[in-house]
Amino acid sequence: MNAQSNQPLALSFASDNIAGASKEVAQAMIRHSTGQASAYGTDELSLKVKLKLSEIFERDVEVFLVPTGTAANSLCLSAMTPPWGNIYCHPASHINNDECGAPEFFSNGAKLMTIDGPSAKLDVTRLRERTGEKVGDVHTTQPACVSITQATEVGSLYSLDEIAAIGEVCKASALGFHMDGSRFANALVALGCSPAQMTWKAGVDALSFGATKNGALAAEAIVLFNPTLATEMSYRRKRSGHLLSKMRFISAQIDAYLTDDLWLRNARQANTAAQRLARGLAGLRGVEVMAGAEANILFCKLDSAIIEALLKAGFGFYHDRWGPNIVRFVTSFATTAEDVDHLLSQVRQVIDTLSA
Amino acid sequence: MNAQSNQPLALSFASDNIAGASKEVAQAMIRHSTGQASAYGTDELSLKVKLKLSEIFERDVEVFLVPTGTAANSLCLSAMTPPWGNIYCHPASHINNDECGAPEFFSNGAKLMTIDGPSAKLDVTRLRERTGEKVGDVHTTQPACVSITQATEVGSLYSLDEIAAIGEVCKASALGFHMDGSRFANALVALGCSPAQMTWKAGVDALSFGATKNGALAAEAIVLFNPTLATEMSYRRKRSGHLLSKMRFISAQIDAYLTDDLWLRNARQANTAAQRLARGLAGLRGVEVMAGAEANILFCKLDSAIIEALLKAGFGFYHDRWGPNIVRFVTSFATTAEDVDHLLSQVRQVIDTLSA
Amino acid sequence: MNAQSNQPLALSFASDNIAGASKEVAQAMIRHSTGQASAYGTDELSLKVKLKLSEIFERDVEVFLVPTGTAANSLCLSAMTPPWGNIYCHPASHINNDECGAPEFFSNGAKLMTIDGPSAKLDVTRLRERTGEKVGDVHTTQPACVSITQATEVGSLYSLDEIAAIGEVCKASALGFHMDGSRFANALVALGCSPAQMTWKAGVDALSFGATKNGALAAEAIVLFNPTLATEMSYRRKRSGHLLSKMRFISAQIDAYLTDDLWLRNARQANTAAQRLARGLAGLRGVEVMAGAEANILFCKLDSAIIEALLKAGFGFYHDRWGPNIVRFVTSFATTAEDVDHLLSQVRQVIDTLSA
Amino acid sequence: MNAQSNQPLALSFASDNIAGASKEVAQAMIRHSTGQASAYGTDELSLKVKLKLSEIFERDVEVFLVPTGTAANSLCLSAMTPPWGNIYCHPASHINNDECGAPEFFSNGAKLMTIDGPSAKLDVTRLRERTGEKVGDVHTTQPACVSITQATEVGSLYSLDEIAAIGEVCKASALGFHMDGSRFANALVALGCSPAQMTWKAGVDALSFGATKNGALAAEAIVLFNPTLATEMSYRRKRSGHLLSKMRFISAQIDAYLTDDLWLRNARQANTAAQRLARGLAGLRGVEVMAGAEANILFCKLDSAIIEALLKAGFGFYHDRWGPNIVRFVTSFATTAEDVDHLLSQVRQVIDTLSA
Repeated sequence: MNAQSNQPLALSFASDNIAGASKEVAQAMIRHSTGQASAYGTDELSLKVKLKLSEIFERDVEVFLVPTGTAANSLCLSAMTPPWGNIYCHPASHINNDECGAPEFFSNGAKLMTIDGPSAKLDVTRLRERTGEKVGDVHTTQPACVSITQATEVGSLYSLDEIAAIGEVCKASALGFHMDGSRFANALVALGCSPAQMTWKAGVDALSFGATKNGALAAEAIVLFNPTLATEMSYRRKRSGHLLSKMRFISAQIDAYLTDDLWLRNARQANTAAQRLARGLAGLRGVEVMAGAEANILFCKLDSAIIEALLKAGFGFYHDRWGPNIVRFVTSFATTAEDVDHLLSQVRQVIDTLSA
Repeated sequence: MNAQSNQPLALSFASDNIAGASKEVAQAMIRHSTGQASAYGTDELSLKVKLKLSEIFERDVEVFLVPTGTAANSLCLSAMTPPWGNIYCHPASHINNDECGAPEFFSNGAKLMTIDGPSAKLDVTRLRERTGEKVGDVHTTQPACVSITQATEVGSLYSLDEIAAIGEVCKASALGFHMDGSRFANALVALGCSPAQMTWKAGVDALSFGATKNGALAAEAIVLFNPTLATEMSYRRKRSGHLLSKMRFISAQIDAYLTDDLWLRNARQANTAAQRLARGLAGLRGVEVMAGAEANILFCKLDSAIIEALLKAGFGFYHDRWGPNIVRFVTSFATTAEDVDHLLSQVRQVIDTLSA
Repeated sequence: MNAQSNQPLALSFASDNIAGASKEVAQAMIRHSTGQASAYGTDELSLKVKLKLSEIFERDVEVFLVPTGTAANSLCLSAMTPPWGNIYCHPASHINNDECGAPEFFSNGAKLMTIDGPSAKLDVTRLRERTGEKVGDVHTTQPACVSITQATEVGSLYSLDEIAAIGEVCKASALGFHMDGSRFANALVALGCSPAQMTWKAGVDALSFGATKNGALAAEAIVLFNPTLATEMSYRRKRSGHLLSKMRFISAQIDAYLTDDLWLRNARQANTAAQRLARGLAGLRGVEVMAGAEANILFCKLDSAIIEALLKAGFGFYHDRWGPNIVRFVTSFATTAEDVDHLLSQVRQVIDTLSA
Repeated sequence: MNAQSNQPLALSFASDNIAGASKEVAQAMIRHSTGQASAYGTDELSLKVKLKLSEIFERDVEVFLVPTGTAANSLCLSAMTPPWGNIYCHPASHINNDECGAPEFFSNGAKLMTIDGPSAKLDVTRLRERTGEKVGDVHTTQPACVSITQATEVGSLYSLDEIAAIGEVCKASALGFHMDGSRFANALVALGCSPAQMTWKAGVDALSFGATKNGALAAEAIVLFNPTLATEMSYRRKRSGHLLSKMRFISAQIDAYLTDDLWLRNARQANTAAQRLARGLAGLRGVEVMAGAEANILFCKLDSAIIEALLKAGFGFYHDRWGPNIVRFVTSFATTAEDVDHLLSQVRQVIDTLSA
C-alpha cells in the first residue's frame, strides 16, 4: 500500500495519462457542479481562467479551452497553415505519429514535413534549409508553420536558446510557431524559467498548454500569443465539436490547476520521481540508462529477463517499441517515492535472482 | 431560496445546458478520480458502460463516448455519408443551424438538404420524394442519410409511427438513419416507450445519446445499431480529437447517469416542470401557450411588457428569435417546482400591475 | 442539310455544350500544336491572353485558365470563403444543383445558402437580410460571399442596376462577389454594355469567364478583379489538378475566342437564334412562350402531342424537368437560322396534323 | 532547321511537356470539332475509347478521361484510401513533390508515407515492413494503398517481377495498387511487354494512363482494373471539376493516340533519342552518364563549364537540382535525331574549346 494516500501502489509506468486527477482538480469540478452558469465559455470562471493565464504569461493572451491535446494541437496548426501548407515537425512528434492524421484533417490536407534531429528535437540548421526550399513554387506545398514538443516525446528538453533559434527561423520566413506543451509544466520546472521565456519571448505564436497529463481529467488550453488567430479559432473550435456547452467544467479544472502553483508542484513531483528512478537504476547490472531524465520520461535498456520479470510482477510500461530491449518509464504527478522504490526493489531483486 | 437544495432559485430558462450536473454524476467522477486506469477507453468502466447500454437497448450496440453533442452528431453523419452525399434534415435542426458547419467539416463537404414540416419535424412524404430525385445523376450530390432530432429543437416529438415511417424510407433507398438524441431521455419518458422501440426497431442506425443536457457535465454516447460503422468510427473519433485519454471520466458520468434510472428520473423532472409551467401560463391575459409542452421546451407568445418585466426581474430566456414576442422556456433536471412557481408568480404579478 | 456549312441540320436544342468548336478556335489549336513552348502557363500565348483580357476589362486583371466551368466556379468560391463560410446563391444555380458538390469540396465544407427570387435571380432585399443574420455568432457558419449567374440558368439577365445593388450588399458586409459567367458573352451582347460595367464596376471580385459553351472546346478563364486572391488561386488551381502542363492549348482557344470579336459574334448568333425561335413559336396553338428569350435559352409550354412528335422527329431538348409540359430550348453559336426554321416548320406541321 | 519537319531545331530538353501535339492528335481534334455530340462523355467517341482500351489491356476496363496527370493520380488515390489512410510512395515521386498536395486534397487528408529505394523505385522489403506496422492502431493512420511511377521520375523502370512483388504485398494486406503512368508508353516499349503484363496481371488496380507527355495536348485516362471503384470515381471526377462537357475532345486525342500504334511509335522515338544522346555523351571528357537511359530521361554529370556553355547556346534543361553539376535531359516524341546530334555537337565543341 502507498503510505501517503492509502492507495495501492501504482504499478504502471506506461504513461502519465493513466493517472487520475489531482484532488484539488476533482474538488473544483464538484464545487462548480451545481447552480446555473452561462454556456459555451461565456461564464465567469472561463473569463477568470483567461485572466489567470494572461498573468502567468505576463501579457494578454487569447485562451480556448478544449478537452484533448489532439484537439489543441490540430486547432493551432490549422489556424496557422493553409491546406497547401507545410507543417515542419520532428519524425517522432505526437502530431506525426499518434493523432491518426488529425493535423491533416483539421487543416484540410496540409503536409507534415519531418525534420530529424537527436533526442526527438528538430535540427534548426536543417529546418532553416528545408523551409527555404521551393518557396513560391506552385508545384509544391508551401512552408507555413513549425511545431515543436516541449518536453519532447522522449522526455528531452529544448533549451531556451534552441527555442529562440527556431523562433528566428520562423520570424525570418513568416512561419507560424506552435508548441505542443502536453508536458509544458514538466519542461518549465526542469528548465527553471518563466512561461513567457519558454514561449512568446522565444517567438512562439500558439501553445497547446496541457493539463490532462499533469493532474486534470480532460482539460487543455490553447494559448494564443498571436491574437490575429483568435477569430478564426473560435469558429474552428465550434466546427470541430470542441466547444463544450458546460464549459465551466473545463474552466474549473484549469482554474484549480493554476491555483497555488498546483501545476508546478505536480510537475516537480513527476520529474523528481523520474530522477529518483534514474538514479536508482544507474549502475545496476543489465540496466543501461539511456539519457538523464530531463522531465518525467526515462528511457533505458533492460535485459530481457528483467523486462519479463517486471511484467510478470504486474508492472506496466512500453518496451521493444523504440528498439530491442528499450524500455520507457513515465512518471506522473501521482507517482510517489514509494512507487519508485517499489519498482527499484523489484529490479534489484530480479538482478539478484538472475546472478545467483 | 430553493427549499430542497438550499440553492438560490434558478432564474434562467434559457437552455438546459446552463444547469450543472446531477449530484450522482459529480460524485461518480470524484470516485473515479484516483488510482490508475488504462487510457483511451480501454478501461473497465468504459466496457461496463457499453454493456449497460446494450442492456438498455436490448441488443449488442457499439458505443463511442465523446464530450459533445456536436461531435456525436457529426461523427455519426460522416460515417454514413460520402463527401458527395446528401444529409436530409429539418431546416430547424441543430445540425443545420447551430454547429457552425460541423457536419460539413466531418463529412468533408457533404450537403445538408432541408425537408420542411410542422413542429420542426420533417415531412415523410416530402422526404420520400426528395430522396428519390436525381439518384445516380453524376451532376448531383446523392442521397446518403437522414437525420432527425428527438425530442426536436422546439420540444415536439416524433411518434413511434412517424419514426418508423422515416425508417421505411431509409430502408427502401438504402439510406443511413441518424437520430440526434441530445434530449433522448426527455422524449423517451414523454412517449413512454422503450429505448429499442424509439430507435433500432424503427430503423435507426446511429444514435447520438445525449447526457450532457440531462445531468452530466460533458458526456455523450454514440450508439451504433449498425455495427459495420464501428471500425471507421474509431478512426474518425481519434482523428477529430474526441478520443479522451482519461476516458474513464466520461464513462463515470454515463455510468452514474444510467444507474438507478437517474437519466429517466432527471428527464421526468424536466418534463414535469415544463408541463407545470404550461398549465400555469394557460389562460393568463397577454399569454398564449403555442403548443403543449411535449418534452422540456415550451414556446409561448407574451406581451412585450411581460417580457420586459421578466427580464428586468432577472429571468433568463430567449425571445423574439423565432418571431415577434415569441418566448422559449427550457426546463431541466435541475428545475424545481419552486423555480417554476416563482416564474409564474412573477408573470401574474406583472399582469396584475399592467391591468391596474 | 444546312446550307451554310454543308453540315446536316443540328437537331438538338438540349444544351450549348453539345456544339463543337468555332472554326477559328480549332485552327488556333492546330497552329499552336507544333514547336516547343514553356509549360504550366509560363508561355507567351498565356501572357498574351492575360493582356487581352486586361484590355477588354479596361484594367489589370489576374487570369487563371482552367478546362471547365465547375473548376472556375469552385476555385473562385473557395478563394473567397473559409470552410465555415456561407456562399449565397439562387436555389436554381448551377453551383447548387449541377456540380455534385464541387463548391463544398473545393472550399472544404462551406455552406451554400439559397436566396430565392423570380427568374432564377436572387432577391437583393432578402439577400441583404440573410447576410446580416447571426454575424459573429460562433454557432453558425458566417457570411462569406455571393455568387450570381449571368446569364442565369433559365436564360434571364441581371440588369446592371441589379448587379450593382448586389455589389453594394457585398461591399457593405465585406463579402466576396462572384459571377458565374458560363454564358457571359450572351449576357453581355444582350445587355449591350461593356465587360467592365457588367463586372468590377458593379462590384464583382471574381468572374468565371466562360468560353466552352460559346465556341471553345474546354476553356474557361478565372478573371480576378481583386488581385489579393491571386497567390492563393495559383496553389488552389495546381492542387486541384487544373494547371495544365501544355497550357498553351487553352490559351490558344481563348486567344482565338477573343480575336476579332469572335466571342461577341458567336453570342449574338446564339441569342438571335433564340429570339427567332421565340418569335416563331409565339401565338401558335398549343404553345406558350414563357418569357422573352433574353439570352440563348427559351422556356415554353408545349402540348404533350407536340413534344412527342418533335422527339419522334429526332429533335433533342429537355422537357418535363421544370414542370409538366415545360420545354427548354438552348441555342448556340452554331445554331443557324435554317436550324431554327427547320424546328419551327416541324412544330407547325405537328399542329396542323393535330388540328386536322 | 530540322530537316524532317521544317521546324527549327528543338533546343529544350527540359521536359516532355514542352513539346506540342502529334499531328494525328491535332487533326483528330479538328475532325471532331464540328457537329453535335452528346455531352459529359456520353458521346460515341468516348465509348469507343473505352472499348479500345479494353482491347489493349485484354479485359474489360473502366475508363475516366481527365485533362491532367495530377487529376488522374489524385482521383485514383482518393478512391483507394480513406482520409485516415496511408499512401505509400517513393520520396522522389511526383505525387509527393510536384502536385502541391493534390493527393491530400482529393483524399481529404490522407498521409503520404515515403519508402525509399535506389533509382526512385521503392524498396519492396521495406514496403512490406512498413505496411505491416501499427495496423489497427487507432492512434495511427492506416495502410491503404501503394503508388509507383512507371517509368519513374528519373527515367528508371520497374521490372515486371518488381511490380509483381509489390502487387503481392498489396494483395497480402488488402491495399490498393496505383500506377502513375504519365510515361506509361515509354516504359512499355522499353520493357517490351504487354500492357496487361505491366499492370493488372502484376496486381495493379488503377492506372493513370498518360498521353499528354507523349503526343496529346491534355488527355489522360484513368483505367480501372478494379471495377468496384467506378461508381465512386464518377462522382469524384465531377465534383473536382474534371468532367468535361465537350468530352469528345479528350476522347479524340486518346482515340488518335491509340490508333495505328501512334502511342508506341511516339514512345519509341523518345526512348531512341535518349539512348542516342546517352551513347553520344558516353566517354566524353567532363561528362559522366549516370545511368543507362531506360526510358526517355537521362541523368548525367557535366562540368560546370559545359553546363554554362550549353545554356548560353540556348539549350534548355534542369541542372543542379538533384545535386551539384547533375543535369537532366528529357526527350520526347518530337525529339529528332537531328535535335540530339545538334546537342551532341555543341557539347563536343565546348569540350574542344575548353581543352584547347
